[in-house]
Amino acid sequence: MAAFERLLEPRGIAVVGASIEPSRPGNQTLVALKENGYAGGVYPVNPKYPEIAGYRCLGSLAQVEGDCDIAVVALPAPQVAGVLRECAARGIGHAVVLGGGFREAGPGGAALEGELLATARATGVRFIGPNCLGLVNVQARAYAAWGSLTRPPRLAPGPVSVVLQSASFGMSLVIQAAQAGIGFRHVVTSGNEADVSTAEIIDAYVDDPGTRVILSYLEGVADGRRFMAAARRALAAGKPLVLIKAGNTEQGRRAAQSHTANMTDEYDVYRAAFRQCGVIEVDDVQAAVDMVACLLGGRLPAGNRVGVIGGSGGAAAMFSDQADLCGLVLPAFAPATAEALKDSLPALSVLRNPVDYTAGFPRQQDGLDFERAFRAVIDDPQVDQLAVMFAAAGRRQVAYGGELLARLVASSSKPLVVFSGMDEALAPEGLATLRAAGVPVLSSPKRVALAMARLAAHAGARRAAAASGGGVGAAADEPVDVGAVLHDAGIDGRAGALDEAASKRLASAFGIPVTADRLLPLAPSLADCDGLPFPVVLKIVSPDIAHKSDIGGVQLGIVGPQALLDAARRMVAEVRAARLDAALSGLLAAPMVDGALETLVGVVNDPGFGPVVAFGLGGVLAEVLHDVSYRVAPFDAAQARSMIDELRARALFDGVRGRPAVDVEALAAALARVSVLAWSLRDRLVEMDINPLLVRPVGQGVVAADALAVMR
Amino acid sequence: MAAFERLLEPRGIAVVGASIEPSRPGNQTLVALKENGYAGGVYPVNPKYPEIAGYRCLGSLAQVEGDCDIAVVALPAPQVAGVLRECAARGIGHAVVLGGGFREAGPGGAALEGELLATARATGVRFIGPNCLGLVNVQARAYAAWGSLTRPPRLAPGPVSVVLQSASFGMSLVIQAAQAGIGFRHVVTSGNEADVSTAEIIDAYVDDPGTRVILSYLEGVADGRRFMAAARRALAAGKPLVLIKAGNTEQGRRAAQSHTANMTDEYDVYRAAFRQCGVIEVDDVQAAVDMVACLLGGRLPAGNRVGVIGGSGGAAAMFSDQADLCGLVLPAFAPATAEALKDSLPALSVLRNPVDYTAGFPRQQDGLDFERAFRAVIDDPQVDQLAVMFAAAGRRQVAYGGELLARLVASSSKPLVVFSGMDEALAPEGLATLRAAGVPVLSSPKRVALAMARLAAHAGARRAAAASGGGVGAAADEPVDVGAVLHDAGIDGRAGALDEAASKRLASAFGIPVTADRLLPLAPSLADCDGLPFPVVLKIVSPDIAHKSDIGGVQLGIVGPQALLDAARRMVAEVRAARLDAALSGLLAAPMVDGALETLVGVVNDPGFGPVVAFGLGGVLAEVLHDVSYRVAPFDAAQARSMIDELRARALFDGVRGRPAVDVEALAAALARVSVLAWSLRDRLVEMDINPLLVRPVGQGVVAADALAVMR
Repeated sequence: MAAFERLLEPRGIAVVGASIEPSRPGNQTLVALKENGYAGGVYPVNPKYPEIAGYRCLGSLAQVEGDCDIAVVALPAPQVAGVLRECAARGIGHAVVLGGGFREAGPGGAALEGELLATARATGVRFIGPNCLGLVNVQARAYAAWGSLTRPPRLAPGPVSVVLQSASFGMSLVIQAAQAGIGFRHVVTSGNEADVSTAEIIDAYVDDPGTRVILSYLEGVADGRRFMAAARRALAAGKPLVLIKAGNTEQGRRAAQSHTANMTDEYDVYRAAFRQCGVIEVDDVQAAVDMVACLLGGRLPAGNRVGVIGGSGGAAAMFSDQADLCGLVLPAFAPATAEALKDSLPALSVLRNPVDYTAGFPRQQDGLDFERAFRAVIDDPQVDQLAVMFAAAGRRQVAYGGELLARLVASSSKPLVVFSGMDEALAPEGLATLRAAGVPVLSSPKRVALAMARLAAHAGARRAAAASGGGVGAAADEPVDVGAVLHDAGIDGRAGALDEAASKRLASAFGIPVTADRLLPLAPSLADCDGLPFPVVLKIVSPDIAHKSDIGGVQLGIVGPQALLDAARRMVAEVRAARLDAALSGLLAAPMVDGALETLVGVVNDPGFGPVVAFGLGGVLAEVLHDVSYRVAPFDAAQARSMIDELRARALFDGVRGRPAVDVEALAAALARVSVLAWSLRDRLVEMDINPLLVRPVGQGVVAADALAVMR
Repeated sequence: MAAFERLLEPRGIAVVGASIEPSRPGNQTLVALKENGYAGGVYPVNPKYPEIAGYRCLGSLAQVEGDCDIAVVALPAPQVAGVLRECAARGIGHAVVLGGGFREAGPGGAALEGELLATARATGVRFIGPNCLGLVNVQARAYAAWGSLTRPPRLAPGPVSVVLQSASFGMSLVIQAAQAGIGFRHVVTSGNEADVSTAEIIDAYVDDPGTRVILSYLEGVADGRRFMAAARRALAAGKPLVLIKAGNTEQGRRAAQSHTANMTDEYDVYRAAFRQCGVIEVDDVQAAVDMVACLLGGRLPAGNRVGVIGGSGGAAAMFSDQADLCGLVLPAFAPATAEALKDSLPALSVLRNPVDYTAGFPRQQDGLDFERAFRAVIDDPQVDQLAVMFAAAGRRQVAYGGELLARLVASSSKPLVVFSGMDEALAPEGLATLRAAGVPVLSSPKRVALAMARLAAHAGARRAAAASGGGVGAAADEPVDVGAVLHDAGIDGRAGALDEAASKRLASAFGIPVTADRLLPLAPSLADCDGLPFPVVLKIVSPDIAHKSDIGGVQLGIVGPQALLDAARRMVAEVRAARLDAALSGLLAAPMVDGALETLVGVVNDPGFGPVVAFGLGGVLAEVLHDVSYRVAPFDAAQARSMIDELRARALFDGVRGRPAVDVEALAAALARVSVLAWSLRDRLVEMDINPLLVRPVGQGVVAADALAVMR
């Protein structure tokens, strides 16, 4: 039996703290179970009353007779741990802790939450919450819930399962999806997630045969890797995970922290993790509803090319604008398609993509002409998805168009999404036909384009995961003997910052190309300069100096041995004067690298996600614009390429203003190797900067000109 | 009488090409007039039938008896010009040309459109269209229209007037606004705008006492200045203009052009024009509907500070994230507010901004406590607007909360916007109360934040326009004797590219600081170098060479006279070898400017908007990232400051990584002066680049180190 099957499909539900007061959770749960007709056992626990909502009251959990899998706990925070012990005694495996007053309420509450978790671990009882609205199994009408989870609208059964960190906002999402005709299987509000996490719920949904699409509202996860594992399982199982993440900005983070007290790491890292796991991140309620509607069609596109047909040139323009912004392409049609359109559409139609058959169409009286035109576009080999712009087409047109599209969708496997400004009241027949055929209808062209772009991205992530084993590739399995590597690099036991030479040895040990430097004594002789590839750069070497150039510790363009000796004298004197405390281990003479693009690579050890690699361009402007991409380590070269492509300044790598294109392949390989380094050394490495990583013209590779690693 | 009063308030409507066939425009107009009960005269023209839709048919327009202000023309393109002549003969001042087959259909159609326009000009008849769905006066039930303008839903009367370049997409917007409860006054679809333009319609709405908010869908305007004048009138009149612009991207432009054949200039220029005129640009249907709903409340905020209160921490987090992204601030409350919140809200509430009174509230039984809390927040002096997060609050809570807010809004002049995920079916009483009180209810926190940010920006534009006279300031009125300026700069009759020296004289004449250069002969003597501020830059001077440095025409860091003579010899030889055709007018010795931020300023003469100033940072990365802001010239220093603030890399000007902050005030003044130059010379200047314009540390001003003007 899968881990949480009894939690999601409970045979009986007890309510501890059952109440006769309608505003109390302990009443609302019982009323909801009764009104919705839950078929399992219901056990109110409250010695004061004989019965509540028609269910016989018990004096304690010990008196529960029959199967019972959930105890809903509607008691003040200090009493909850005791209930968990009673659950264990009675053999009730799960609790749902509704009330607040725990971690989110300050230090006293945090102590209670700690006690609660300790009790759970000791007894083996798993619990949802605290500080939540509970959970519902919509099919089974099992309500271990209160508040908006038990209020209208009554959710229709369907294949969407939901996990929400904010119940009230999350339910506004569920309600709007329900009003759009979407049916649900499970809704879990996870609250503070002291015990059961969003990741575990997602895992349970992956195991649940009735769940086809997963919807989540997230503020933060304690264990990023655990979340990624669940998301990757969902991706592999073909159950798309649609997610809204909040608490991403300075003001948003503050708001989220006073709310569920969930730790919110850097949003950049979440965004990277979502991309790596094929999570479909959306930024608003409507976008989430649109996305779920599109995914329930069960079709994924083979690429990002969209055929567009409709009766509104304005809608086509709106769609095309958005397509441009979100990476969809409107390809030119194959010649046969153009022919078919010419033969079947009215005069004055625009026959190119986007096709505009002008207002007033499609019409029944034109026979099969329109169906032929639509079919030609969806069947065009250049087209991966079909967008239909009904715009303000009237009731009869939508009715006829709906029938046409229902036939079309039955004979094509490509996704098809409709824009109509008409709602159910204005075009009931057509929208009902489209709904029955599983064709999503969205109310703006921009929303259609956004949903299609997300479908295409998700499909791409699925293909990539299938090809590389979760987007990690061989990287994760590469056996690295960390001890040997550190020993060979001469840094086995060292903690704190490493100097440039040691940092580069570490990089080099993982296959990251570094400049061919020579370590010189602090007072070099002419003989030390023999064979140096002048002109060279001279740099001070010290684990104590992070920003060498600020204090005269770097000199470029040294032309010969005598100049080097002079520079060395000056440099050591200046650095000593500036940093009396710094231990100087020598000087580094490095070859000059010209004509390369300056990039920088960073490794950070994120508290939630572990080692993460950041990549961006060098220079103050790139820094100010925060044009940086992130990936959770380890990852393969394909992920690294997508990391490079994500930069807004990506065009620089192809060469602009007459500069040569640079070696993106070598760069991707180096980034993947940095990710292996970060992952392999995760227990030792605090952070690492390779700055600059110089990217040379195509075919000439990359080279790290400086590096700084901090160990623990 | 205002220009289009008779068009918008017609006393009678003739339909030329009246038809008995329900699919034909000439039938749909008549049926709509009849079914909606238009009270004016209706005159079908078709000699073949005695009557259509209950109206008596006439043989020709000449037979129309009684007042008639509009002839709806539902005939093939070649026959329309003739109808215009008949209109003139009968004294009908306006035509609405429904059919297509004009400019959008190719060269033949363009010729017909030209003929039509010539006829209109000759006869004085003004016409809407061609290629449109006509127009409707909702109050008067005057339908000079067909297609979606005549189909359900029947629009409710109200204060919103609409002008649409795409009728079908535009009507999907109107329909969705109508379904959200918004009432309308006029809807005009302008089609190809061969004669009457969107700008003229906006002007007519400004003159219309019943119009309070203007809504528009735009693909492009032929005369950008005319549009801006109308938008500025609307701003000054306090009638906000909400606008969706399409055709902004490569793919979008292509789609728009095959549609209405409207010229679409660079979107950047439109965006600048919209900002300068306080136009509220939105990017989607829902955002437009939200915005109109918020504006109908008639309240504008004094600033960008928002107080947030509600029962959903998740909604608060979502709101706060979006607030961060769109420039809204959640200020700390004044101490009195904090006190009042503490006294009136339940335990476990979050009392900071955003306030979270937790799920299950507000409740009737808590008496006036909640009202006190809401009032404290909206009355807080730190708060300009109030956002209320009802999220998934239930029917009774929304009903009680609605009453509370209705009282609140009656005693405050600050805008108040509600997020509720409940629709009319789920919370009928509360939503009705809020609607009656004029409080907009939007269905996601993100949408609330976006609408509030746009309200704040629009309010700011109104204040700026009031302060500076349309945001142009004194700049537009500054009297410039262009002839004298050009004469003094020694370039009166010259056309084509000017050399650097002449370009700088031009800039200097308009008060733009330039480097103190000295013009030297091509073969300078030592005496020529007397008093030069070494080190200097030496540059070749030629009107024929735009990119001097590419061919050895620039040398930096010349330390003394002899070095200059050597450099001059080398430079002249190299440039002559590279560009045999170029006329060389001399050499320029310019002082070196260190420690300044490199920016660039461009002037282009846009076909639709005339002179436009572009501003960005120097360097290839800024170019690749297209971090450039635009303003239509002329503008004052306040606009120039907003132009600087718009750059994504704005933080660079404040100094980063230890660099000094630069002289933004001097930069703004210089940009405003460039705009006066651009405006004053609009008949002569093709384009101008000042690259780089060097911005020195605060107090040290700016200086143009190079300039290139092209005259005609």
